[in-house]
Order: sequence, then C-alpha cells, then structure tokens
Amino acid sequence: MKKEKPLIIITNDDGVEADGIVAIAKAFRSLGSVVVFAPDVPRSGMSCAITFTHPISYRLLIDKVYFKVYSCTGTPVDCVKLALNEVITEKPDLLISGINHGGNQGLSVHYSGTIGAAFEGCVFGIPSIAMSLSHYQPGADFSEACRLGIILAELVLQRGLPDGVYLNMNVPNIPKVKGIAVGRQSDGRWVREFLQDETDEKKSYWLAGDYVIKGQDSPDNDVTLLLEGYASLVPCKIDVTDYSFMEELKKYL
Amino acid sequence: MKKEKPLIIITNDDGVEADGIVAIAKAFRSLGSVVVFAPDVPRSGMSCAITFTHPISYRLLIDKVYFKVYSCTGTPVDCVKLALNEVITEKPDLLISGINHGGNQGLSVHYSGTIGAAFEGCVFGIPSIAMSLSHYQPGADFSEACRLGIILAELVLQRGLPDGVYLNMNVPNIPKVKGIAVGRQSDGRWVREFLQDETDEKKSYWLAGDYVIKGQDSPDNDVTLLLEGYASLVPCKIDVTDYSFMEELKKYL
Repeated sequence: MKKEKPLIIITNDDGVEADGIVAIAKAFRSLGSVVVFAPDVPRSGMSCAITFTHPISYRLLIDKVYFKVYSCTGTPVDCVKLALNEVITEKPDLLISGINHGGNQGLSVHYSGTIGAAFEGCVFGIPSIAMSLSHYQPGADFSEACRLGIILAELVLQRGLPDGVYLNMNVPNIPKVKGIAVGRQSDGRWVREFLQDETDEKKSYWLAGDYVIKGQDSPDNDVTLLLEGYASLVPCKIDVTDYSFMEELKKYL
Repeated sequence: MKKEKPLIIITNDDGVEADGIVAIAKAFRSLGSVVVFAPDVPRSGMSCAITFTHPISYRLLIDKVYFKVYSCTGTPVDCVKLALNEVITEKPDLLISGINHGGNQGLSVHYSGTIGAAFEGCVFGIPSIAMSLSHYQPGADFSEACRLGIILAELVLQRGLPDGVYLNMNVPNIPKVKGIAVGRQSDGRWVREFLQDETDEKKSYWLAGDYVIKGQDSPDNDVTLLLEGYASLVPCKIDVTDYSFMEELKKYL
C-alpha cells in the first residue's frame, strides 16, 4: 500500500457484506487508501468479546492498490487485533467501524460490536470512530450517514484525537440531518427485555426490550439529540475508572 | 426466598461448575440468601456481549430455601438480564461476579465477561462487584480471595455504591494478601497478540500476548498494586463519556 494517501481501516459488526460497510468503504475511497477488514458473517452485540477457545483466520477478497477487502472469522475486536498485529504493516491514520445498521446510542456503547471495534482501534493509538444509523428495517439508505461520516473523518484526520479517546457517532434516519452535535452517553436502560417463546415447553427467551432514558437526563444526551434531528457525537474513554468516587471508596476499607 | 437475609446473586463467566464460583457461593452463604445464576459452560472473554440471534433458556439445578443454583445458556450479561427480568422477583441487595480464574486488571475490564456481568448488575441498580484471582494454572486456591470478598461484600452491603458505579477487585495469587487497595485501571495494552499455528496451511491465529503498562503510569494503578501484594479495587463507571474533551471536540465542527 503506497503512502501518499491516508491509510484508513474500516470494520464493523454486521459483516463484510453488509450494506453499511459497503457504502462507507466506497465513500471513503475519496479520502485515502482503504482497507476493509471485517467479520465474515454478522457478529452484532459482541461488545469487546475476544476469541481464545479456537484460532481465527482471514481471507483476502479484493486486492487493488488503494483498496483491499479482507474477511475474518473473529469478532469485531478480533478483526482489529488481527489486522493490526499480523496483516497491515503500517499504522493506519484512521479507523472507522460501521456504518452499523441500527443505532448505538446510550447504553449500547457497551453491548455493540461496532463500538467494540472502535474501542480497539483506540487501544492501538489510532484515531477511531464508530458510526451507526438509527434504522431498523431492511433497505436502509446510508447516503446521509456517509456524507456526515466524510465530514467527521476529514476533521479527525486533520486534528487527531486525544490518547485513549474514540468517537461514537449516531445518525438519525431522516433525509436531511441538522448537523453533528457533540453530546453525552444518555443515562438509561432497557426494560421488558425478554419475549418468552410460548410455543416452546422448555421456556426460551428472546432478547427484546425498550430503551428508556432517565427523566432528569440533560438535553445534550445522545438519545435526545437524535430525536431532535442531529447526528450525536459522543467522545468515549477507554479508562472507565470513576476517579470522583475513589477517595470515598477508600473510607469504606 | 425469605427476606430476613440480604439477597445475593452470584454469576461468572467461567461457568456454573467452575471452582471459583463454587467457592464464593459457599463462602457467601454466611452473608445471606444466595442465588447462583451462571452460564452452563465457560464463556470467558465475552465482554458485555448479548445474544439475539437465538433464544436463551435456564435450568434450576439446586433448590434450597436460602440457596438456589441456576444454569443458563446465555453470555454472562444475558444471565444477569434473564435472572433479573424473569426469574428473581425481588431486587437483590448485591451482585457478585466471579471469582474469575485469571486476573481482570487494566484493559481486561473491557474484554472480561466477569466484568460484563458486574456492569450489567450495576445497570439494574444493584451494588455489583467483580472478583478475579490472578492465577493461570489448574487447581487455584480461592480461599484468600473468598476471605477478601466477604470483607468487601459486607462493606458494600452496609454502605451501598453510587448510581452507575460498580467495583472491580483483583486478588494476587499469594498466600497472605496485604489488604485491599483502591486504585485505577492501569494504562496499558497487549502486544504480540497472536501465535500463528504453523501446522495449518490456512494460517490460523491463536490469541495470546503480553500486557504492558505505560511507563508513566501512576503507582496506584491496579497492575502495580497487584505486584506489590495488594488486592486492587477499581471503581468503574457505566458512563464512558469523556466530559473533559467535549468542549474541544465542539471546536472541530
């Protein structure tokens, strides 16, 4: 891979053939050399899961000078680890994870494989952005999310990101988004999380549920920004230590 | 389940039959009513992964008045969600995840299913503690970790934890630990993360690697505390927003 252009690695959790990654990979070819390195099949909801009960492998599917596509048998985090340890020899200038088909606002930052991959890019010191579209039926149109993704990626390529910080952008599913608004992870949780399969005597439970934000949440939370027609942009930290509680916790002991 | 005693739910990622959960469940029967609700098989490295491609189910294995044991076909986070949505009707006073066989210090907070389960307990508003033992061969002795676990659990039962905060305790594998020391998530990462299976023409990669902390890390990081003979105790936040970078990020746009 020649180095005149920025090197951009793109991954996701919906799998290498998903519409969202195909759209963003195509759009980002105008920005630099693109290497897609993504799960061979959908692996959503995998969070930062890693594989060590069996080995993983990868396969080169498309091999052009400025555009390569690999599929990998691992989780989204495995993909980033394998690509950056074993396959891509020079350090990428940017990592994009997505565009996920479905929103990853609020608490989803913890469950999403899309976010997991952006987290892992950040661990490697690469400016990393997760991108998701709040759309839940087949046939999503990723064009508006691609447009905003390019704007954001150009800014991050110019200015970088602090050590240990990655970005989580969610785009509402409307034709013309008002813009990108910086916000915070909303304070909420899922309720009524399971549907019982009543045809099944063994009692099987399907994960479902509704996301509810707490009443007192401030207006710049990501769920509210999306409802107002903005793409939400939350800076996320790798360090989850609650420094404000450390002194109080010492008094427990 | 009668309510004279605190209700304690115990889960893990090593599976319901693992030595660490058997040891802690037995030890905690002196503290209250214990409900074990854990994966039916080992599901380590699952982070906060959730299952929605197929339904999950559970099975009651032991049914005593103050001690119940369930196995579940889901991930550690699935276990907590299913137990608290569908099985345990009153709100537990405490959730314990572990004792994990292997340390979960530093960046492991993101990859570990043990920590994932404690995170999920915290989402439900239950004071939640992940416990892990830094031991990596078969036949670990969990007695010292159980002793410290009971000390910590009694303190948390008395004083509670703030909303959105859970605890990550790691115990070094030494006969007499110096005590529990509050610290921070160490700033480090894995290097040399894969071993290539050279007998395999397809090129298979096994996850491996060494954890390296950054040189400038402050002395109260969890890896250093463990090396000094303390059990490290890190308060962790559900909200990963980097508030300190939000204003700067707004200037990008």
